[in-house]
Amino acid sequence: MARSIITLTTDFGVDSPYVAAVKAVIFSIHPEVTLVDITHAIAAQDIDAAAWALLDVTPRFPAGTIHIVVVDPGVGSERKIVYAEIDGQGYVAPDNGVLCRLADRANPTKIITVADPRHWLRDVSATFHGRDIMAPVAAKLALGLAPDELGPPQQRLVRLDGPEVRILADTIEGEVTAIDSFGNLVTNITTEMLEGVPVDDRVVIVCDEHETRGIFTTYSDQPEMTLIALVGSSGRLELAIVGESAAIMLGVREHTPVVLTW
Amino acid sequence: MARSIITLTTDFGVDSPYVAAVKAVIFSIHPEVTLVDITHAIAAQDIDAAAWALLDVTPRFPAGTIHIVVVDPGVGSERKIVYAEIDGQGYVAPDNGVLCRLADRANPTKIITVADPRHWLRDVSATFHGRDIMAPVAAKLALGLAPDELGPPQQRLVRLDGPEVRILADTIEGEVTAIDSFGNLVTNITTEMLEGVPVDDRVVIVCDEHETRGIFTTYSDQPEMTLIALVGSSGRLELAIVGESAAIMLGVREHTPVVLTW
Amino acid sequence: MARSIITLTTDFGVDSPYVAAVKAVIFSIHPEVTLVDITHAIAAQDIDAAAWALLDVTPRFPAGTIHIVVVDPGVGSERKIVYAEIDGQGYVAPDNGVLCRLADRANPTKIITVADPRHWLRDVSATFHGRDIMAPVAAKLALGLAPDELGPPQQRLVRLDGPEVRILADTIEGEVTAIDSFGNLVTNITTEMLEGVPVDDRVVIVCDEHETRGIFTTYSDQPEMTLIALVGSSGRLELAIVGESAAIMLGVREHTPVVLTW
Repeated sequence: MARSIITLTTDFGVDSPYVAAVKAVIFSIHPEVTLVDITHAIAAQDIDAAAWALLDVTPRFPAGTIHIVVVDPGVGSERKIVYAEIDGQGYVAPDNGVLCRLADRANPTKIITVADPRHWLRDVSATFHGRDIMAPVAAKLALGLAPDELGPPQQRLVRLDGPEVRILADTIEGEVTAIDSFGNLVTNITTEMLEGVPVDDRVVIVCDEHETRGIFTTYSDQPEMTLIALVGSSGRLELAIVGESAAIMLGVREHTPVVLTW
Repeated sequence: MARSIITLTTDFGVDSPYVAAVKAVIFSIHPEVTLVDITHAIAAQDIDAAAWALLDVTPRFPAGTIHIVVVDPGVGSERKIVYAEIDGQGYVAPDNGVLCRLADRANPTKIITVADPRHWLRDVSATFHGRDIMAPVAAKLALGLAPDELGPPQQRLVRLDGPEVRILADTIEGEVTAIDSFGNLVTNITTEMLEGVPVDDRVVIVCDEHETRGIFTTYSDQPEMTLIALVGSSGRLELAIVGESAAIMLGVREHTPVVLTW
Repeated sequence: MARSIITLTTDFGVDSPYVAAVKAVIFSIHPEVTLVDITHAIAAQDIDAAAWALLDVTPRFPAGTIHIVVVDPGVGSERKIVYAEIDGQGYVAPDNGVLCRLADRANPTKIITVADPRHWLRDVSATFHGRDIMAPVAAKLALGLAPDELGPPQQRLVRLDGPEVRILADTIEGEVTAIDSFGNLVTNITTEMLEGVPVDDRVVIVCDEHETRGIFTTYSDQPEMTLIALVGSSGRLELAIVGESAAIMLGVREHTPVVLTW
């Protein structure tokens, strides 16, 4: 049997010892597990950014992988912790909307409220449920604990409210949702939304006061220093400046509107 | 038998290739081991910060884990390298005080001077003992080498001198020892020291020119933008600004005094 | 049999979710593999810096390790992807010069053009061949796929052109190739090149307008704040300021010339 895999997505900051504290708890329960960092560079308490990262990366893991998500501004308040199964993957996360983009793409097949303290550390701090509740729960699930033991089922997950993409007859209005390490501007406009949209220079893409025409396939389709729109590796529209950082050169940040017209 | 685990704590900087060089040496001796990064973001040569990180995280690992510590300003000088067993965990570190907080909490059950070059790489550089001495020693210990083979026993570990917390009749004087990735100010004042101290607004906590009253349980006990004192997940007093970075908003850094009076 | 190891060297940025996407693909094919990060902090598209990091670190891994390199400014253009065996290690990389320093030290024993799409993901994006081609190829090699199945052999690897070290009768002219996390300036001048060069104060080392005399063994050979030249742990000449960051104090960056005369 394949060794089981647990991943970690947090806003603890790159290389925070908090991450290692979570790992220590997991290994103390399940020393054989494989741990994988998805990212710890989610901006502090940015649930939306974490929701996108989970959507882009977690569906590619082997079925049965368990993903811990600790982006948890409500820790210590009334927010619940949930276990959810979506598209063959398991998630242990605060029920604060961070799983809703995954749940929009594939209906959860199981949602359990993590409620039974027998599966947690004996001493649960008020401020670090990632270490004290989520880590032991994930480790025990990876060892074979039945999810129904964690607590009662619940009907649905909390949703993020936030701007949805608006799709009109000859316009699509989205926004920049992430800036990658190359400075490319990744939007919430997906390949599916672009069906029927012309890719030649009839389509105009406007981001802030910057404008480009056409949707290309790869960066090398245009000369250096050109602003280019293309469908990136995440299956969403990206704006890039060939050979440079679009984020720095254009001064664009997350949540800047991106509008296509044709 | 559980696979053995080796952890790494260094000041090499996040994602320095030096870390991978240490890992390569370990895997070349023990390809089955599980490696875990505790942190590589210790400020350059900050033995004190490393001592706190080790105290917070390493005791949570499975018994028998081996922890390599490479915060080593004295590399190439007369400082020794030691192997120490403390509370069921093994440590391979320079004998420069980095283990003294752990040793204060639980007496070491074994201290060995790492002296026998048969267990090191054949060519030992003058500047990278983490890779050339500590990595092979840890890998061989994980494979079952008896610690007594490493060299002669020694009686005690070097201590850090540094400010201790002063505890008076109605005052406790400590300091900020770490700033976490959320900008919370973690102090060296522990839960045990706070026994008998009132937690209501009779207690005044002063840090730099900033002041707050009462010791709370969790961030959500106070409104956003409030300076709050609470006992954090490491069991030590923390100062936080709800929803913000206290370090940035207050301009406070490590070693700033924190004084409680009641 | 030892579990197999795959390493990753990229310019994705520390903690980019792109790294986890590569890992997810590898684990989905080979859940038992051990993954090791060499570095993800290569400056964007800096093939030269990646070539040095690979040279310093990869030869220390166990024979048979597979190293994925995704520093790939030409993705989507005509550049090839290659599999190369050098000194017992396997490399899956764009054929853009990133392997040439390794190949200078030991002749590749096999070079294969990665050409057969049966071993790739079914959907290959135009912009992320690390995830869609290199990751599945490396995972399948680690599972035992014969390299010859990947595509046709090729004769040689692309070379980087860049300044070579000039060695004259009483002068060596090199440059700073990397700045480590301590601010030490690592050059392209190797121990071998220094054979016959005096190490006492007859030798003068000049970097920018800064000058030092003699080649030392370790940092503690000189007092704090002194500019010192020594052969570092990578076997190349380094310039350091004892106890400080030479890069910051001298304002020196990569590619600054370093000249020895004696």
